[in-house]
Amino acid sequence: MKVSIVGGSGYVGGEVLRLLLCHPKVEVQQVTSEKNAGDFIKIIHPNLRGITTLKFCSIKELKKCDLLFMCLPHGTSMKNIENLKKLAARVIDFSADFRLKSAKEYERWYKHPHTAEKLMKDFVYGIPELHRAEIKKAKYIAKAGCNATCTILGLYPFIKAGVIDMNMPIVAEAKCASSEGGNKPSIGSHHPERTNCLRSYKPAMHRHCAEMIQELNLKHIDFSATSVQLVRGILVTTHVFLKKKATDKDIWKILREAYGKEPFIRLVKEKQGIYRYPEPKILAGTNYCDIGFELDPESNRLIILSAVDNLMKGAAGQAVQAMNIMMGWEETTGLEFPGMHPV
Amino acid sequence: MKVSIVGGSGYVGGEVLRLLLCHPKVEVQQVTSEKNAGDFIKIIHPNLRGITTLKFCSIKELKKCDLLFMCLPHGTSMKNIENLKKLAARVIDFSADFRLKSAKEYERWYKHPHTAEKLMKDFVYGIPELHRAEIKKAKYIAKAGCNATCTILGLYPFIKAGVIDMNMPIVAEAKCASSEGGNKPSIGSHHPERTNCLRSYKPAMHRHCAEMIQELNLKHIDFSATSVQLVRGILVTTHVFLKKKATDKDIWKILREAYGKEPFIRLVKEKQGIYRYPEPKILAGTNYCDIGFELDPESNRLIILSAVDNLMKGAAGQAVQAMNIMMGWEETTGLEFPGMHPV
Amino acid sequence: MKVSIVGGSGYVGGEVLRLLLCHPKVEVQQVTSEKNAGDFIKIIHPNLRGITTLKFCSIKELKKCDLLFMCLPHGTSMKNIENLKKLAARVIDFSADFRLKSAKEYERWYKHPHTAEKLMKDFVYGIPELHRAEIKKAKYIAKAGCNATCTILGLYPFIKAGVIDMNMPIVAEAKCASSEGGNKPSIGSHHPERTNCLRSYKPAMHRHCAEMIQELNLKHIDFSATSVQLVRGILVTTHVFLKKKATDKDIWKILREAYGKEPFIRLVKEKQGIYRYPEPKILAGTNYCDIGFELDPESNRLIILSAVDNLMKGAAGQAVQAMNIMMGWEETTGLEFPGMHPV
Amino acid sequence: MKVSIVGGSGYVGGEVLRLLLCHPKVEVQQVTSEKNAGDFIKIIHPNLRGITTLKFCSIKELKKCDLLFMCLPHGTSMKNIENLKKLAARVIDFSADFRLKSAKEYERWYKHPHTAEKLMKDFVYGIPELHRAEIKKAKYIAKAGCNATCTILGLYPFIKAGVIDMNMPIVAEAKCASSEGGNKPSIGSHHPERTNCLRSYKPAMHRHCAEMIQELNLKHIDFSATSVQLVRGILVTTHVFLKKKATDKDIWKILREAYGKEPFIRLVKEKQGIYRYPEPKILAGTNYCDIGFELDPESNRLIILSAVDNLMKGAAGQAVQAMNIMMGWEETTGLEFPGMHPV
Repeated sequence: MKVSIVGGSGYVGGEVLRLLLCHPKVEVQQVTSEKNAGDFIKIIHPNLRGITTLKFCSIKELKKCDLLFMCLPHGTSMKNIENLKKLAARVIDFSADFRLKSAKEYERWYKHPHTAEKLMKDFVYGIPELHRAEIKKAKYIAKAGCNATCTILGLYPFIKAGVIDMNMPIVAEAKCASSEGGNKPSIGSHHPERTNCLRSYKPAMHRHCAEMIQELNLKHIDFSATSVQLVRGILVTTHVFLKKKATDKDIWKILREAYGKEPFIRLVKEKQGIYRYPEPKILAGTNYCDIGFELDPESNRLIILSAVDNLMKGAAGQAVQAMNIMMGWEETTGLEFPGMHPV
Repeated sequence: MKVSIVGGSGYVGGEVLRLLLCHPKVEVQQVTSEKNAGDFIKIIHPNLRGITTLKFCSIKELKKCDLLFMCLPHGTSMKNIENLKKLAARVIDFSADFRLKSAKEYERWYKHPHTAEKLMKDFVYGIPELHRAEIKKAKYIAKAGCNATCTILGLYPFIKAGVIDMNMPIVAEAKCASSEGGNKPSIGSHHPERTNCLRSYKPAMHRHCAEMIQELNLKHIDFSATSVQLVRGILVTTHVFLKKKATDKDIWKILREAYGKEPFIRLVKEKQGIYRYPEPKILAGTNYCDIGFELDPESNRLIILSAVDNLMKGAAGQAVQAMNIMMGWEETTGLEFPGMHPV
Repeated sequence: MKVSIVGGSGYVGGEVLRLLLCHPKVEVQQVTSEKNAGDFIKIIHPNLRGITTLKFCSIKELKKCDLLFMCLPHGTSMKNIENLKKLAARVIDFSADFRLKSAKEYERWYKHPHTAEKLMKDFVYGIPELHRAEIKKAKYIAKAGCNATCTILGLYPFIKAGVIDMNMPIVAEAKCASSEGGNKPSIGSHHPERTNCLRSYKPAMHRHCAEMIQELNLKHIDFSATSVQLVRGILVTTHVFLKKKATDKDIWKILREAYGKEPFIRLVKEKQGIYRYPEPKILAGTNYCDIGFELDPESNRLIILSAVDNLMKGAAGQAVQAMNIMMGWEETTGLEFPGMHPV
Repeated sequence: MKVSIVGGSGYVGGEVLRLLLCHPKVEVQQVTSEKNAGDFIKIIHPNLRGITTLKFCSIKELKKCDLLFMCLPHGTSMKNIENLKKLAARVIDFSADFRLKSAKEYERWYKHPHTAEKLMKDFVYGIPELHRAEIKKAKYIAKAGCNATCTILGLYPFIKAGVIDMNMPIVAEAKCASSEGGNKPSIGSHHPERTNCLRSYKPAMHRHCAEMIQELNLKHIDFSATSVQLVRGILVTTHVFLKKKATDKDIWKILREAYGKEPFIRLVKEKQGIYRYPEPKILAGTNYCDIGFELDPESNRLIILSAVDNLMKGAAGQAVQAMNIMMGWEETTGLEFPGMHPV
């Protein structure tokens, strides 16, 4: 199967490319970058030196293919989709443009109107653990936001099980790596300023809340995001309050029921060792979402811990997993890397 | 004035020593370390090379002095206090042993009985912003826990102002540096394992909760702590829910009323630049507690952000500030370092 | 083919295990650890959670297998080899015990006598780029030291080509990551001390010099090693002085002649982008040795830059590559991971 | 005394400002920044929040003062010097423009002609350990380059003592922090690319060589620079070859003779502890240059290790030290900060 990547010079585009170059079922036909058209890909993605001799091309040179990965900036996908969908029967879009079902909600969170409202319903929200059946039949997939993916996967089993006291707040805190911000330099991403920072970059009103609210059917979520010293990875600590006292066993049961058969969800709560809860550090390069928890014996608080590599399960890995499902291939194809320790 | 440090080979002991060696009003008489007795201090604290030629001595060699800084492990202070208080009229204790007023609460959180219950009431809890008047008259001071200090200073103005809806949870999340764990190596602090980690080291039931509950007169606090890649510093993100909608101006007013004259509290909420909220990175070596906030316009959530250097305002700096108050000296003496940028 | 790992709780053992679990031609039979016998492997190597349900066993429980990976501490392999070689026809040893050909040299560098001198000649030094033909026929392989591997691979083409002025010194500087020191905690590896350090841990007389001298047929090498903030990776900067002026083209020719067909050597010298020379950061998890250079136009100095992941090409990857050669398999089997960017 | 800073929004300008605001003998009159004119200084230098309420002004608004610190980019100082010297009797320039004595050498290294050649001789090269007597009488000082400072201070005693075999190369390797590159963001300084890097940014022909050659009277120096994960700090490892075998005692004697009375040079070579050689990590914020060494018993190689904080002894601290000397003040005034441990 022939695939192409639109917007392949960014971090997410580069990660999709890496996965596809090692994927046994696909051939990468073209990778676009307006800025780097004509350059060897290895100049931008030095890890692919010796792996591919492809060069970037311009979006204007794109040929027809079987599946198009669109890694364009938010707000740009909806402007290009009409033209690009003529090139491929299947599209996986990485922007935020087609994640929401409501143009009104889109405008509320993104502060500008949606210009391709009619197409919104054609896209399936790309988290396989929530929408596997739909993805199987889909032609268009909207890759979920990285923070949204990590938060939703942690909360989903408990929302589904109906054990959370919805009169109490749901407080979710994401600790985020620098690659989440993309590859455009700014003073905020300048190494002397960004290194070792603990920066409250979005204490309230993070746009990914819109996805969490939609997918979990919430009224509101009290979400905050903090930048930390890490290149890849997200840890979300979600605090919910249960309707009634629960034991570890109760929580395990809920998690196992939701995710017992999921190939990319690991349940992590150890009594030994130092990696007792989920940690993004050991997930670099993997498609896992590790989920764990703790109960506060003094209150009905359940602390849910979920971790992903933002560029993998939070982006490129999620998209490849969705492609595998869509094509009827083994879901884990090309996503077998187990992660490193130590790293 | 002559001062000595008991337990001076640890990180907190070393930091007190650094401050005292540069303090114009005191002379450091002795520094004890059982393990390093006889060794030059510079071997353990290499920053003090050329600053002092002192050697560590044993606790048995301690002479009388005017003020004793006790930097012993938790549970050890209460065993030594009877003997040590004979050596000095004033004691500042860094352990957790004399922070709580109730032996019962102590036992509940520390899981062993208190063995010097009678002395508990003699100690003043060492946060100057809450107990300045008492510290002025005190002979015995219990330095507050670092996470407790940072969390309490963030919450205190709002608790005092009575604006928090106490039927809703108070969720506080601390991001903690590695020096907080002291200088004893373990697999958890081993560089390849600890570097770049996001480790949920205490999602619930952190012992410092006992201090927060006591000082803020709470029933419970939903506190979680996560280890991050940083050697010094704490950022606490505290989520509270207000009784009624508030504006930025309302919050500023509450903060200014509480801290407007405090020499070591800075209120931080900028509309420009990249350091818009408090960040521990630029506080390394300073005695500041920077406090900022954000309001969630979608809910009544107030997000309080507070940051300190755990070894300074969270430990040695706090103690020196308390000493300055106790002795009637200018409160900022020896604590003037403004911090570095970038760092 | 059935393989077992002796000493599988360390970082190198864990990395071999990770590679072997994903290797299509082998089955991991047993993994020993005296300290962790009976524990699940995931407790020590959290990346392998969900990948294997194996438990560590004791060395006493080892059964016969086809190939044994010995990841024991230096000095221990030579004590165990007689017994262990009865269990498998093939052995790949990771310790320094069988890398040298001369027991006298061994004693000079390791400061204790060699106790299995007779076996020294049976081992092939494990760098495939130098000893592929011998490895093909070997039963016993001594994996090269990580710093030695990286330095030797950089120097080898130029030594071979005879262009270096051997009356001038060869100065090689290795910048080393923390995983090189193994998984045993100490104050030197304690996170607050080790983070962000630039520590001259071995300015002279590093033991790996013995291997460089042997393999490159040198009299002496002026090697220094500095610890840097990195968990994985080595960059060696080697300064040699050429017999006569050379151009970039001359150097390229020498490198291409030596390594043009090597699957795991990449030649790196770009005129564009930011990764113009080899960098270990993007090699994490890969088996590549990236090699580049610069000429000093003011002198006859050639600066050779070589980079590896110390746990991969410097250890586990090298061993698996050697196994593939030894078994007549495709040399890259199980070593296809291209590395990540950014990371 | 009234001082002003031209170009105060950069890292070096900010560091000078920090030192001057805490200096008991001076008053900061103005700080210029064309880009930030009108903004509060705390927006750019968040550490100075609460320390100063100054705003940046434009260079056009500069008033007369007693001493001018010029922190302008290389090539800009020489264009502004004629106008600026009218404003102050004394100038300390941070650019490279007046470090060299020869306009020809300047052009050779900086690739453009010098436009204020006549003034070159009026400037004293600002390393006090080499030029204290001249600085005392100077009006114009050229602050030395950071890498040059660190390398020169390490080599100087041995050049002076005449013990180096000058027929052999002098190989110096600097490991450099990110603040050295200034505060202008680029893809090379972008956090995901720059973090944890070991990047050979200048393997040959670093411009600071010109200063080393001039100050040490060399024909050539084989200098290479590598970027490492650090915000502040330089470690230079210099390899020289001695005319004849030497002992540790010989080397100590040479160092003590050269630097025995220097307030900011510390000689570091310990037999105990983990900080046995100089390390920049513990020098952050200090004006020390720590110098140590090792002898290679197998050759006549002397490995000299020198470490500084590039923004302090390598820039702002050096300038303030020079100002103190020039003004006849205690040389250490305002430079007393001992550095932190751990950090």
